[in-house]
Amino acid sequence: MRKEIRYSGSGGQGLITATRVIARAALRENKNALQSQSYGAEARGGATKSEVIISDKEIFFPEVEIPDILLLMTQEAYTKYGTSIKENGIRILDSFFIPDYEPISKAVTHTEPFTAICEEEFGTRIVANMMATGYMLGITKVIEISTFTQAIGDFFSDNKLTLNIKAAKFGYEMTKKGKEEETDQD
Amino acid sequence: MRKEIRYSGSGGQGLITATRVIARAALRENKNALQSQSYGAEARGGATKSEVIISDKEIFFPEVEIPDILLLMTQEAYTKYGTSIKENGIRILDSFFIPDYEPISKAVTHTEPFTAICEEEFGTRIVANMMATGYMLGITKVIEISTFTQAIGDFFSDNKLTLNIKAAKFGYEMTKKGKEEETDQD
Repeated sequence: MRKEIRYSGSGGQGLITATRVIARAALRENKNALQSQSYGAEARGGATKSEVIISDKEIFFPEVEIPDILLLMTQEAYTKYGTSIKENGIRILDSFFIPDYEPISKAVTHTEPFTAICEEEFGTRIVANMMATGYMLGITKVIEISTFTQAIGDFFSDNKLTLNIKAAKFGYEMTKKGKEEETDQD
Repeated sequence: MRKEIRYSGSGGQGLITATRVIARAALRENKNALQSQSYGAEARGGATKSEVIISDKEIFFPEVEIPDILLLMTQEAYTKYGTSIKENGIRILDSFFIPDYEPISKAVTHTEPFTAICEEEFGTRIVANMMATGYMLGITKVIEISTFTQAIGDFFSDNKLTLNIKAAKFGYEMTKKGKEEETDQD
């Protein structure tokens, strides 16, 4: 089992951190993970890209070409990476920043205004990355939410730790609601 | 110009952070950079591995196979990665943790007890990563020390920022001393 995850958004959204936590969580589940981010012409263009590959086996080919799971947090990220996804992939969009999106036949798209919900629930946007990741885990089950929240402790302490964990759990719980309700929320 | 840099040591030595700062500094110099770390069987074995590729051109092949520059901060890291380096590569060892090392003909080896010097100069080991990286930049010139210290500001603030910058500059200055003196210090 090899899963390739791509996150794209803008600097300051914490997407690199989120992918690093995912990689640490995978390690806690005795899986292998490779986490990377590129800095350069593309990053300057506005859409940052951060990736994780998770596998039960050793990872020999370290590149994500077409991801299984795609999380996009800005319109620019959507424009740039929105249609590059594997057949039967899972595409998750922050509809707060991506109001204009189109369904694609090869992947299932889930949209939630994570940033707006985060601000409403927690009074800050800063953990929208964790909320979206909790949501992603609820949909994809690529790692357990409990392992993920444990791994958050490798990166944060005190109040920040509590807030990040709450946001991740909140995002995870969002996926347990009915599909109709989700659609309404958009 | 493509340079592949591998850092290996143990968790808590801040080597991932150091490579991320290098990547951000490369971006500030309008270069492209790809930074990655693997988590898995190898990491559990004790030697973490964190890498950066810096290039003037777009980076198509994202894997470091044999690095140009190798920084090793533990004996385990040395045992695991110590001889895997390109012809005419630069190998930098923390002799505080790696008392037993052998020269290799294909690369130039520089050794300094970074961790001990750091503790002596700054009363903490926590910025030995920055000291070693400043030293690495003094030897390799792969990016400017001034860009590197600016990039530290993307990761730290306040007292931590000041301390990290001081340690990086200190490491850089160490390379301006005579070679004999360096050898004496070991």
